[in-house]
Amino acid sequence: MSHSEIVTAAMLAIGDELLSGRTKDKNVGHLAEVLTLAGIDLKEVRIVADDEEAIVEALNALRSRYHYVFTSGGIGPTHDDITADAISKAFGLPCVHDEKAMELLGEMYARRNMEFSEARQRMARMPKGAAHIPNAVSTAPGFQVENVYVMAGVPQVFQAMLEVVIKTLPAGKRILSRAISCPFGEGDIGTPLGEVQKAHPETSIGSYPRYDEMKGFHVELVVRARDEAVLNAAAADVEAMIATLKASRPVLEA
Amino acid sequence: MSHSEIVTAAMLAIGDELLSGRTKDKNVGHLAEVLTLAGIDLKEVRIVADDEEAIVEALNALRSRYHYVFTSGGIGPTHDDITADAISKAFGLPCVHDEKAMELLGEMYARRNMEFSEARQRMARMPKGAAHIPNAVSTAPGFQVENVYVMAGVPQVFQAMLEVVIKTLPAGKRILSRAISCPFGEGDIGTPLGEVQKAHPETSIGSYPRYDEMKGFHVELVVRARDEAVLNAAAADVEAMIATLKASRPVLEA
Repeated sequence: MSHSEIVTAAMLAIGDELLSGRTKDKNVGHLAEVLTLAGIDLKEVRIVADDEEAIVEALNALRSRYHYVFTSGGIGPTHDDITADAISKAFGLPCVHDEKAMELLGEMYARRNMEFSEARQRMARMPKGAAHIPNAVSTAPGFQVENVYVMAGVPQVFQAMLEVVIKTLPAGKRILSRAISCPFGEGDIGTPLGEVQKAHPETSIGSYPRYDEMKGFHVELVVRARDEAVLNAAAADVEAMIATLKASRPVLEA
Repeated sequence: MSHSEIVTAAMLAIGDELLSGRTKDKNVGHLAEVLTLAGIDLKEVRIVADDEEAIVEALNALRSRYHYVFTSGGIGPTHDDITADAISKAFGLPCVHDEKAMELLGEMYARRNMEFSEARQRMARMPKGAAHIPNAVSTAPGFQVENVYVMAGVPQVFQAMLEVVIKTLPAGKRILSRAISCPFGEGDIGTPLGEVQKAHPETSIGSYPRYDEMKGFHVELVVRARDEAVLNAAAADVEAMIATLKASRPVLEA
């Protein structure tokens, strides 16, 4: 994959607990940060329940559309862990007890003098031919099938797996960004900022209002581009816009 | 809508900043909690960029499939706020400056001695015929079109709007849940827990491993059902399962 090509990705987070509010997802934000640093554009995220049909449908939609798909959740040893089966079904592959995973897990439980139970053996199941994704936190492997990376839902394990995976991916051309704090409200900058965006079509300029109980609303402007000169030119125009507004009126707080 | 019918919902979170990792979404988890309390099942979440085509496609997929769709983000006054246009397009409606919203915003800015700029007037745009969603934090309205509720991305405003909206929705039959702390690892309970689940098909039993740097992994079991007697029967069997395991072996920490 050449560095000039834009590399895209999607995430599929799996788990009833994310949709009931019992667990607040922490993996989407982490994946987003890691991919941004790697120059890979996260384009879409879906969160679905522990429901085979929902997983298969979402996975097939995402894997055909983006270069990479990263999943989280549902690869443990209990009955509600159905991700391995669902991914196998999506690829039309049999879901089997992987020989290497059985060995690794068997050795680990023997060392710890624990039973390698039928439930624990479930963690060795993956689509036939899948590649392991190891992790330093627990021995249970994630796995890769084609462009899909299947990882754990527990954030510490997800992060450990992602650390391994990200090193194996060809990096894209990283998006550069510059944050510019803005003392004017969005309503004051909206029109001139739109003009700056139009004048710099190769950049993406975002305006992010934040709300603080003490300070009320304030605004952070973020210019993004893949080329540094392009980024600098647009950022200079945003700063000039703020300077012009400052000269023409007092700073408004809202 | 009768109380015996299951009421479903989806969320569509909109914003480049969620996908770059710059902003960590806080609205999905909040919506999930509020809907669970209201007896509405959140079935799917999608996060997409500030991209009209992506918003239209996701919205049309979700609104035809679930009773309600809640969106967050992209309704401010800057050029990257394209949600009103995208929702209008998805419904085939013109996106117009709503008369009532223009009045409300115009009065508010007059009171504050601020210019009702062209950018601020953008916040009054919505699909023709949409109903307002007010909020106590900022005056800018969200809006409702058919089964779609369009709300702000700033969490405080999203929450204020949701508070108004949720009261207008017919509540579903609330899912009851009981959390049971489990001193055994998932690998020890996987097989018997699967049997409990099979014996109680009207419940959904989840097993949630957590990782703590001090304590390692521990497991929370959650039984969910819409009927209290059904819930109690399954929870009793989960507790009996734990008692049986305790009698047969020492507590395992992992």
